[in-house]
Amino acid sequence: MNIEEELKGYKGKALDVLKRINAKVGDLIRVRKNGIIFEGILIPRSEYGDDEHVVLKIKSGYNVGIRVTHTTQIEKIGVGAKPAFAPPPLPMQREGLPKVVIVSTGGTIASRVDYRTGAVRPALTANDLYSVVPELAEIAQIEAKILFSLFSENITPKHWRRIAEDTAQHINRGVDGVVIAHGTDTMGYTAAALSFALQNLPVPVILVGAQRSADRPSSDAATNLIGAVKAAAYAPFAEVALSMHADFSDKTILLHKGTKVRKCHTSRRDTFRSVNAEALAKLELETGEITMLTKEFNKRNSGRKLALKPKFEDRVALVKFYPGMGSGVIDWYVDSGFRGIVLEGTGLGHVGNLCFDGVKRAIKQGVIVAMTSQCIWGRVNMNVYYQGRDLLAIGVIPLEDMLPETALVKLMWILGQTSDVEEAKALLTRNIAGEFSPRTLPEKVGE
Amino acid sequence: MNIEEELKGYKGKALDVLKRINAKVGDLIRVRKNGIIFEGILIPRSEYGDDEHVVLKIKSGYNVGIRVTHTTQIEKIGVGAKPAFAPPPLPMQREGLPKVVIVSTGGTIASRVDYRTGAVRPALTANDLYSVVPELAEIAQIEAKILFSLFSENITPKHWRRIAEDTAQHINRGVDGVVIAHGTDTMGYTAAALSFALQNLPVPVILVGAQRSADRPSSDAATNLIGAVKAAAYAPFAEVALSMHADFSDKTILLHKGTKVRKCHTSRRDTFRSVNAEALAKLELETGEITMLTKEFNKRNSGRKLALKPKFEDRVALVKFYPGMGSGVIDWYVDSGFRGIVLEGTGLGHVGNLCFDGVKRAIKQGVIVAMTSQCIWGRVNMNVYYQGRDLLAIGVIPLEDMLPETALVKLMWILGQTSDVEEAKALLTRNIAGEFSPRTLPEKVGE
Repeated sequence: MNIEEELKGYKGKALDVLKRINAKVGDLIRVRKNGIIFEGILIPRSEYGDDEHVVLKIKSGYNVGIRVTHTTQIEKIGVGAKPAFAPPPLPMQREGLPKVVIVSTGGTIASRVDYRTGAVRPALTANDLYSVVPELAEIAQIEAKILFSLFSENITPKHWRRIAEDTAQHINRGVDGVVIAHGTDTMGYTAAALSFALQNLPVPVILVGAQRSADRPSSDAATNLIGAVKAAAYAPFAEVALSMHADFSDKTILLHKGTKVRKCHTSRRDTFRSVNAEALAKLELETGEITMLTKEFNKRNSGRKLALKPKFEDRVALVKFYPGMGSGVIDWYVDSGFRGIVLEGTGLGHVGNLCFDGVKRAIKQGVIVAMTSQCIWGRVNMNVYYQGRDLLAIGVIPLEDMLPETALVKLMWILGQTSDVEEAKALLTRNIAGEFSPRTLPEKVGE
Repeated sequence: MNIEEELKGYKGKALDVLKRINAKVGDLIRVRKNGIIFEGILIPRSEYGDDEHVVLKIKSGYNVGIRVTHTTQIEKIGVGAKPAFAPPPLPMQREGLPKVVIVSTGGTIASRVDYRTGAVRPALTANDLYSVVPELAEIAQIEAKILFSLFSENITPKHWRRIAEDTAQHINRGVDGVVIAHGTDTMGYTAAALSFALQNLPVPVILVGAQRSADRPSSDAATNLIGAVKAAAYAPFAEVALSMHADFSDKTILLHKGTKVRKCHTSRRDTFRSVNAEALAKLELETGEITMLTKEFNKRNSGRKLALKPKFEDRVALVKFYPGMGSGVIDWYVDSGFRGIVLEGTGLGHVGNLCFDGVKRAIKQGVIVAMTSQCIWGRVNMNVYYQGRDLLAIGVIPLEDMLPETALVKLMWILGQTSDVEEAKALLTRNIAGEFSPRTLPEKVGE
């Protein structure tokens, strides 16, 4: 390995300085600058990086970029070690326990940073899992497999299909539950996608992620995974659910219905919230006790025959309205062959007059245009104001209390099932996977 | 007036039925259908309406559309009355009280439905105001004017400019506070716009709306308006703030900082929330007591000279990322001459690989691309994952904990002030109107 490979991504001035002190990626480095001392492990830079900064992973787990100037003092204080994760021997599988498959798609929960190469390494071989969470062997007979190793912003409708097909295959050979490890960023979208693609479930399908990777002191990866495996193995429901921390304690996990859940904080461990619905259930980590929080759910029944409907149409867009937005962007989507547009309108479901021509033209050309609210909470009601009534009359379909993200996924799924516009519209307003909550009584609306 | 005008918007079968019973818009109608009886005032239909429904405003204030079939029984049970809002004589202005201007831009708070014509009538002449909220005369010397009568989804950057200029004119002639009545749908965007356009304020500028119009039993219009006028007249701060109910009681009003506030429910009266910040202050309606909830605020000082910077560039877009989104829509914005794009990315500030080419090309062509999070709560941090670091290296500007809506408005405002890209970028990351909250201490991030 030549020095450029050992200093991956570094160039110019920063590369010169690091060469001078004979540093390699993975070494412990100390930098003094303007009276501040940074100590951390030298990590590689992205190919787009400039030639002026060195980047250290400091003890808290955060990365700090320090610009090298002529007053910067830099020294090597330790040599990089090989990653210290020696997997323990695989524990004995206990015969009587339920069978759970963990399918990894990537994301923080499945990652462990190799500081030497800077690569994010998927940790979900069965061996790796037990090295991080040995308790799993007490809960279920675990089989682990890697489907992809993707950050979740790169998960697309094509990946939803593969996850659905893979999950169906495990269910059809008789496992007691499936856990899908997934990046949290778009886990809500994937949870909705699987809710539509996997119907008539016999056993639970539990999505799980982490807000901090397992190599960070405050990681929630292990507790989330334990919660997800317990739910997959023992929950009384057969639903697509998303399993994450209920709060800041490490005691309670909430299981959210896949069509009603949304990531609502960039970094908190209780980032996922059920919107316009109660969570499906809660799970106490210590005792494993699962309490249902909703009355209506599909009960676990291993004899039930799964209905797999994994196709999605990716020419469907989510368009958030903003003040001054015109018809141009809607026209572009229509002209580009998109078959559906979910609008994230204001309030009860409005967009400005400047969008009306675009919306009319889209609908005239057979594009399905549906309305959700950027308020996120509450229910669209397009009958209250003229603007809404006009949009209804033009043919915009109001989606009640459905999340904009779920609406996008549902329309992608519907247009994967049918090319008939009228049939698609009818499916859009039919409750298929709990995406609509029952309407609040009129006198209670909003209060 | 011929019968078609008296039955505005009705056609075909519905028109025939209404003609037969000699009904006019505004009449009290009773309809029996499938064993249900509806009684209400006949209201006009939109031009896009079908020819099968009659629409009644029932006692609760809701509109109900009833499809007329051969089994529908319909009768007229009362004749339409003229609107019963006889304005009282204008109360004496009390000399010693502070001077407050109420500027109406439209929206629910300023509307009263004239059931006869179906038109939404702006109620904000001084006389009309006192007829609805006579208490105002006890609080301040009120001057009321109508600037526009728009539903707020039709408020654009051009309107922000006019509101700012009008407000500045009132402030410059020495009023003690300005109240801006506004539709709630985009009131958060306008609050942010005024926060940037009106700098170095001597007195408060208070935006106020209502979730229910004054003619509905549960209207919050009067209490919100009283709260806003009290704040404009007596608050110790000179800030752009948004004044709405704190909760379901009619006791407390929260005053939210204009750059940190967002509509978070389609219909609740406490729909507005301060995001990633405490509210500025709370106001007890009964006593008028105002308690500051934040330490840092601009104090009221009538001697201070307002700095008016009212220009906005409307070729700036807000683009919410969704799974599978490609570069095409970004390319379209660039090719259409847009000068800025605010991305609403996932989690800590990511978009998928499929968008990278579009983002690179946009930045290469001098378009400013900034990153916010669709999580809404929390702070983007693009240093944690490769995907974020790559986007930073390409030149995407991370906007910390700024709301996506505020970011859009800020970039529109900046590009109204300067055409220099580097200066614009520098302004974007500088805290101008409290749009950034101080960073949480590292060990507390997210927990």
